[in-house]
Amino acid sequence: MIWLNRTRRLRGGPLAILVTTLLLLACPSPGPETAEAEPAKPALPSWNEGAAKQAIRDFVGRVTDPSGPDFLPEPERVAVFDNDGTLWAEHPVYFQLAFAVDRVHALAAGHPEWRERQPYRAILENDSERLGKMTEAELVEVVMATHAGMTADEFARIVGNWLDAARHPRFDRPFTECAYQPMLELLRFLRDNGFKTFIVSGGGIDFMRVFSEEVYGIPPEQVVGSMGGLRFEMGDDGPALVREPGLFFIDDKADKPVGIHRHIGRRPVLAFGNSDGDLQMLQYTEGGPGPALMLLVRHDDAEREWAYDRESPIGHLDKALDEAAARGWTVVSMKNDWNRVFFWEAATD
Amino acid sequence: MIWLNRTRRLRGGPLAILVTTLLLLACPSPGPETAEAEPAKPALPSWNEGAAKQAIRDFVGRVTDPSGPDFLPEPERVAVFDNDGTLWAEHPVYFQLAFAVDRVHALAAGHPEWRERQPYRAILENDSERLGKMTEAELVEVVMATHAGMTADEFARIVGNWLDAARHPRFDRPFTECAYQPMLELLRFLRDNGFKTFIVSGGGIDFMRVFSEEVYGIPPEQVVGSMGGLRFEMGDDGPALVREPGLFFIDDKADKPVGIHRHIGRRPVLAFGNSDGDLQMLQYTEGGPGPALMLLVRHDDAEREWAYDRESPIGHLDKALDEAAARGWTVVSMKNDWNRVFFWEAATD
Repeated sequence: MIWLNRTRRLRGGPLAILVTTLLLLACPSPGPETAEAEPAKPALPSWNEGAAKQAIRDFVGRVTDPSGPDFLPEPERVAVFDNDGTLWAEHPVYFQLAFAVDRVHALAAGHPEWRERQPYRAILENDSERLGKMTEAELVEVVMATHAGMTADEFARIVGNWLDAARHPRFDRPFTECAYQPMLELLRFLRDNGFKTFIVSGGGIDFMRVFSEEVYGIPPEQVVGSMGGLRFEMGDDGPALVREPGLFFIDDKADKPVGIHRHIGRRPVLAFGNSDGDLQMLQYTEGGPGPALMLLVRHDDAEREWAYDRESPIGHLDKALDEAAARGWTVVSMKNDWNRVFFWEAATD
Repeated sequence: MIWLNRTRRLRGGPLAILVTTLLLLACPSPGPETAEAEPAKPALPSWNEGAAKQAIRDFVGRVTDPSGPDFLPEPERVAVFDNDGTLWAEHPVYFQLAFAVDRVHALAAGHPEWRERQPYRAILENDSERLGKMTEAELVEVVMATHAGMTADEFARIVGNWLDAARHPRFDRPFTECAYQPMLELLRFLRDNGFKTFIVSGGGIDFMRVFSEEVYGIPPEQVVGSMGGLRFEMGDDGPALVREPGLFFIDDKADKPVGIHRHIGRRPVLAFGNSDGDLQMLQYTEGGPGPALMLLVRHDDAEREWAYDRESPIGHLDKALDEAAARGWTVVSMKNDWNRVFFWEAATD
């Protein structure tokens, strides 16, 4: 149980304690000694009964039944999850972009030229109209300016400190507390059933690795994401990996299956996304020789989270939604299928 | 135990059965029920008593002792192994090059132009003098011509069929039987002590993944290697990953730590190589904050295998040997530290 083996300091203390408590509560009884004293709790408590929950339970039941035709040995139980909008929220902006914006503010004193240069100026002046028009090239430039020029160890420390301090603008909680409780339960449920869970995200691999183990129970070696330049050097303080400007790999859209193959080397049997950026990952998963389950989170809950799909630039869900309807993929309605979105909410049921 | 969970056909049947048998014999008794009936066998039976075996046992003892100062929680017990010359032999040529050469022969009928073009002509005419002068650019060209232009699934089948049929020219056995028995025991010993074992090799990642699980017990997601182009496409037969010409990443020398960081995201605590291509991987491992063990196989046994180091183009071991002496890294003498090299040999002790 990775959660209990960690020695690193738990970041965001109250979150960690709460989430750990919830996971321990959700955890099936560990062995026959306690099975009688403490009846096993039902899995997936934050999921309402319905087609989505049933599809998950059915699939897991089929692939773990050694006498059934769909049985899969444990090493083949590979489950991949998008991160932004699938495992945690992605509004009002991708959290990694919030990090980059905060870094621009933090580094501005050393970059007087940013006062006159876009998109830095818009960031520093909080010019939301101009920020709304930010191009992809500008976005990449801001990420490069804030994510490169330090060692990999330093970057992890910077991200960790930011996660400790930053608050989500709407929920006024650490960003790591904006992970979806039903998805945390699903990750645990799958692992309890012999699955290996992976993140496969367009987000930065080293950004996600800072919190993936604590928040999701997914260790760094099971995180697949976008990557920038990286260079080994023997410095004065010994060997180090230095983060360099430039993109090495963008783990999105048709390159998600590529990232999966390169990192994992097996075709997943379960894939969960929320946007058109996940379409090919779901197609690739469906195309395998055996049983497969494809799922999409649909953000249709403006009250507890957000409601957006075909028109939204963030979490754009259009073609994948059509494909889900055509192919019978499971669409998970945040509003109807989840009785709570975040652990700190009361369940609606 | 990954070895027993597989459902894929065991390639090289006799090998697989023998190796499985050996591993089962080497496996410590599984639990208290059998501990009394069957005393635990000593670990690392193919290793002679000496400084190298002692260094391994001491290190594993220290990092697994929960009351000691060097204790490491299991997730941090990351061990990385070079492949060619470290886990299996690499003479007279890298086995993957033997595969490429055989592929040139197999594909020659469709490429009449190869009869006149180097280095294909030298390969087809078995012109060893010209082959000895093959440039790196020519080598890359041959690899591209034989490793691209098919789907990832097709490539895995081609490699699997080759491994079934091809024989090592000196030992007249399948190449997979040229894995070093002491290293198979070491991989198992480390896993039995909570380590996660990874391959980190300049060899092709998808070439190694075909046999890594069967031969080494290392699953595909724990193989790091060189990578070519890869493209997702929705073809007539459904979604597929197509291998494209061009190199994406060469996992060698200063890029071994880069490959480790990108794939694993943790710094290893044990690294085992055999050539200057592994130097930076060992430096990076040593540079971590806690305990670390760095090892090199020294090929000094012309009788049972080969003897080569500073002058050899294959497995060139020069700077790393000096560094090992200067820094106290463990140099493993194949001749003195191993009482058998291959499972099919009688032990010399």
